[in-house]
Amino acid sequence: MILKRWLVGDPLKTAQATHERLSKRLALAVFSSDALSSVAYGTEEILLVLVPTSLAFAHFSIPVSIMIVFLLAILTLSYSQIIFEYPKGGGSYIVSRSNLGEWPGLTAAASLMIDYVLTVAVSVAAGIAAITSAIPALFPHRAILGVLAILGVLVVNLRGVRESGKVFAVPTYMFIGAILLMLGVGFGQLLSGRLAPVTPQDLGAQPAVESISVLLLLRAFSGGCTALTGVEVISNGVSAFRPPEPKNAAITMGMMALVLGTMFMGISTMAYHLGVVPKADETVVSQIARAIFGEGTLYYLIQGSTMLILVLAANSAFAGFPRLASILARDGYMPHQMEMMGDRLVFSNGIIILGVFSCFLIAAFGGDTHALMPLYAVGVFLSFTLSQAGMVRRWLTKGGPHWKKKLVVNGIGAVTTAIATGIIATTKFSHGAWIVVVIIPILIMMFRGIRSHYKAVAEQITLDRRGLRPPMPRRNIVIIPISGLNRAVVRAVDYARSRPGEIRAVYVDLDPEESAKVKIQWAQWGGGINLIALASPYRSVLGSLLDYIEEILEKEPNTWITVVIPEILPARWWQNILHNQRALMLKAALLFKDRVILTDVPFHLTR
Amino acid sequence: MILKRWLVGDPLKTAQATHERLSKRLALAVFSSDALSSVAYGTEEILLVLVPTSLAFAHFSIPVSIMIVFLLAILTLSYSQIIFEYPKGGGSYIVSRSNLGEWPGLTAAASLMIDYVLTVAVSVAAGIAAITSAIPALFPHRAILGVLAILGVLVVNLRGVRESGKVFAVPTYMFIGAILLMLGVGFGQLLSGRLAPVTPQDLGAQPAVESISVLLLLRAFSGGCTALTGVEVISNGVSAFRPPEPKNAAITMGMMALVLGTMFMGISTMAYHLGVVPKADETVVSQIARAIFGEGTLYYLIQGSTMLILVLAANSAFAGFPRLASILARDGYMPHQMEMMGDRLVFSNGIIILGVFSCFLIAAFGGDTHALMPLYAVGVFLSFTLSQAGMVRRWLTKGGPHWKKKLVVNGIGAVTTAIATGIIATTKFSHGAWIVVVIIPILIMMFRGIRSHYKAVAEQITLDRRGLRPPMPRRNIVIIPISGLNRAVVRAVDYARSRPGEIRAVYVDLDPEESAKVKIQWAQWGGGINLIALASPYRSVLGSLLDYIEEILEKEPNTWITVVIPEILPARWWQNILHNQRALMLKAALLFKDRVILTDVPFHLTR
Repeated sequence: MILKRWLVGDPLKTAQATHERLSKRLALAVFSSDALSSVAYGTEEILLVLVPTSLAFAHFSIPVSIMIVFLLAILTLSYSQIIFEYPKGGGSYIVSRSNLGEWPGLTAAASLMIDYVLTVAVSVAAGIAAITSAIPALFPHRAILGVLAILGVLVVNLRGVRESGKVFAVPTYMFIGAILLMLGVGFGQLLSGRLAPVTPQDLGAQPAVESISVLLLLRAFSGGCTALTGVEVISNGVSAFRPPEPKNAAITMGMMALVLGTMFMGISTMAYHLGVVPKADETVVSQIARAIFGEGTLYYLIQGSTMLILVLAANSAFAGFPRLASILARDGYMPHQMEMMGDRLVFSNGIIILGVFSCFLIAAFGGDTHALMPLYAVGVFLSFTLSQAGMVRRWLTKGGPHWKKKLVVNGIGAVTTAIATGIIATTKFSHGAWIVVVIIPILIMMFRGIRSHYKAVAEQITLDRRGLRPPMPRRNIVIIPISGLNRAVVRAVDYARSRPGEIRAVYVDLDPEESAKVKIQWAQWGGGINLIALASPYRSVLGSLLDYIEEILEKEPNTWITVVIPEILPARWWQNILHNQRALMLKAALLFKDRVILTDVPFHLTR
Repeated sequence: MILKRWLVGDPLKTAQATHERLSKRLALAVFSSDALSSVAYGTEEILLVLVPTSLAFAHFSIPVSIMIVFLLAILTLSYSQIIFEYPKGGGSYIVSRSNLGEWPGLTAAASLMIDYVLTVAVSVAAGIAAITSAIPALFPHRAILGVLAILGVLVVNLRGVRESGKVFAVPTYMFIGAILLMLGVGFGQLLSGRLAPVTPQDLGAQPAVESISVLLLLRAFSGGCTALTGVEVISNGVSAFRPPEPKNAAITMGMMALVLGTMFMGISTMAYHLGVVPKADETVVSQIARAIFGEGTLYYLIQGSTMLILVLAANSAFAGFPRLASILARDGYMPHQMEMMGDRLVFSNGIIILGVFSCFLIAAFGGDTHALMPLYAVGVFLSFTLSQAGMVRRWLTKGGPHWKKKLVVNGIGAVTTAIATGIIATTKFSHGAWIVVVIIPILIMMFRGIRSHYKAVAEQITLDRRGLRPPMPRRNIVIIPISGLNRAVVRAVDYARSRPGEIRAVYVDLDPEESAKVKIQWAQWGGGINLIALASPYRSVLGSLLDYIEEILEKEPNTWITVVIPEILPARWWQNILHNQRALMLKAALLFKDRVILTDVPFHLTR
């Protein structure tokens, strides 16, 4: 408890919840870390497909990157329309559920959940990669560093991110500034011919240049799609903008797309011109920065701000996941406890679950960004597709001004993202995308299972509309099973006597000598309560008690039986094995008897 | 439950317990299976030390065997004296505790417990070895066969061995008869020169004959001591003999020693004359039987009856261990539940524990008899030594007729068994005896820990001798925490109303809209009980409830608080995660509050 207070802070009052409205400048910082940070690995994922096959294929990274930027433009346009239609926040789950129905909605929810977990894992892994590129000595420890980073973000989120806005602005703008500076200086050096390629071109014999296969291009495109993860985030947070919210959000989204496109294209072009070859222990961005800036302060600025924005990206998932879980809980698809806000006005349960799963992923994949990637993009693009398809359906059914034009925009969005989803799922299937393909239906089944259970429960516990009380027993017979007399028993007797009613103590007769002793003691300590001695030919205390209770239940159909059990509570947990074995068995045997209610009267031992 | 009935049988009445008195002939069969079966591995353990070093050392097995028989004679004499002194049964624990005090008594108890577990493991492993010697195809499965055999004996013992006496006589006398027949025929063949050695003497170059080291002889002696395990059993069971019990028991013990000595010496001599070399996959006895009888019916009779008597030996531990555990429980050194007889008039808990540990040993040692041996003899001889030392102390303090002569007998017994214990513990220490040396003190600490806990408990729960009642609250306020209205809540309300008294329903106000609804419903369903709405600035239902209860406890020092919790009991276990999380936390928080008593009113879901 003390540890919890120290880590998480004192509870906050409900009234302390604030609703900060963000300017476009701050909103860009708050909502775009996920998207912008993707440039840290997007180009690298393209090169990782092309270069290992043949160095001569590296130049294909340019057309592939152009395709990605084109896709970015389509997505930005399509999502702007969602912003105007869902000013309270149009997550993929909400859009697809409200327009397409339950199954697509749950599919979107499942892919979003997977996305959030992967956003944390991938961003943290990539952030750690930025650090280990600069400090190679840390490379062997990347998995444990990743787990520690997630735990740090987890604790910050459990405390509740009150500060928001301004705290986010610094690293985000620092990252944008640093990357743009690097690209500017780099292209200057390139034009003036002062920049030498990173990889000497005569590095051993290269295989003869073959014509590139379509499959390879598609795989490179799949890799590049990871650069687009996170572009939808602004559409979830429209309500946090200053009015007019939708317009400001749409403008911010456009700005974000512009910055993202510029940085991504710039890094891809620069990587090609420098002949950068992906390495296991140094990121592409690090290689570029090192070539342009050398080992100076500016290089470390790039690496440091890359790490920071990636941590912010992970942080954004810690906002999104619990909110989605609480929406799903509200709709009955997740356990009710996901809906509850914790001490610090955050959805603590969701935060913890996200932390646990992403730590597991980092550990399972050894903190390797590239190994996690095939799992990532497929869920993201599936949710894109469902959102866009939902909008298409919306325009078709709802209409509205310019609906045909809007239908075309979202239609193009739906078709392109559907194609991209298909490409990603097939080209990366064997590399890990299959895991997502397997988990999504499992999650959907879980959602539906939970909901159908809650529905069944609601039907069973709902009160009669006519106000008719279900028939309930009116009497109550209190039974105290004892096996001897001691302070614990006297305490239970006194507790039972503190309310009026019919009370019986019950004793199972195993040994006539012992019984006589108990009867004498009872006369002194029993407080006038009737002591009933049960015969037990089979030495089964439990059996005799159960028989006696059964008998009362049968004879008295209109009575509750309260079984008051004197229980000794040891001071140390292991001592439990030395006590109450019989009480435990009695409780287990009585748990499923209707009209029998158990009451433990604990007697606390101090040593 | 049905499975239990089928395996174990219907419960037996206490009155069904019988006390059969045994004739000497039957008693020999019942009590000596453990001792007699030891010849199945005693000789082999000697040869396993001598032969691998040099075949030329094999003839040392004869003097070592003579030493063992000599030790057997000493033990028989010494134990006869115990039989006359403890006609109600003189186990090592009782003898050493009553004469030497608590620590030696507990040491004896610990070594006996280890012995019993090892008797089961070793006997079953050796029994399986007798079978796999005859049917080599089963050899790879010996560990699993051993576990199955133990489970079989376990079930038989849980049913209770009613039959006793006559059932034991058949395999025991069959074994004695078969072994004596084999030895008779074998020596006949030897004298007529018709018996060829098993091992051709020209099997490769032998190392030059060196003089044998003392250490090797001592190790061979340690190995042979395993043949003496079980000789004390008769002294535990004196009360089962026909009167005059001690005399009949002593005579039976002498007969047993005679048979054991003859068989052991015969097998050792025969093994030497046949030049038997121990093999991993065939026992020495099997090799001898095969050489004498060939592969005929008589060979299988030897192997089969060996297996049967070894199973009987394991069975005898299933009688001894639970009895010892119940004696220890009676003295407060083991949990009380060990003292209880089960449905079938047997100490079921002890039987199950013995079965589990011996199965574990068989599995851990791969069912290899020889690997288990170093653990076995050390505990046996330690308990021998403590018994004899206890008797020495007894004669010194108690005196009695001929006490000096008796002192000398037990003195010699104590000294020789002490020396044997030392030899076994040192020569076999690194082979496994260290495990026993480590476990004995752990068991002693456990015994003492349990006893001191029970003592502390007794002091804490004992009733005041003057009959003064400890001050207890006299009022009782019933609180029903609710979070809304449903049938489970109505059930809890009706239960609370079934006894007169002060009842309050408590509701934590989180959302004014919801609260208004609850109040309206309460008016209809609350049965006239006062509904108290608690404010919750921190949204903590739990915190507000706890604060409210604390407040009552403080204001009303003379009152119990009964917290009646409406609880939904799902039909399937996994659904528990979807319910009652809050009730669980509430119960955990209230468990250690004095004067607060919890009552769950379960509402059983059916789907």
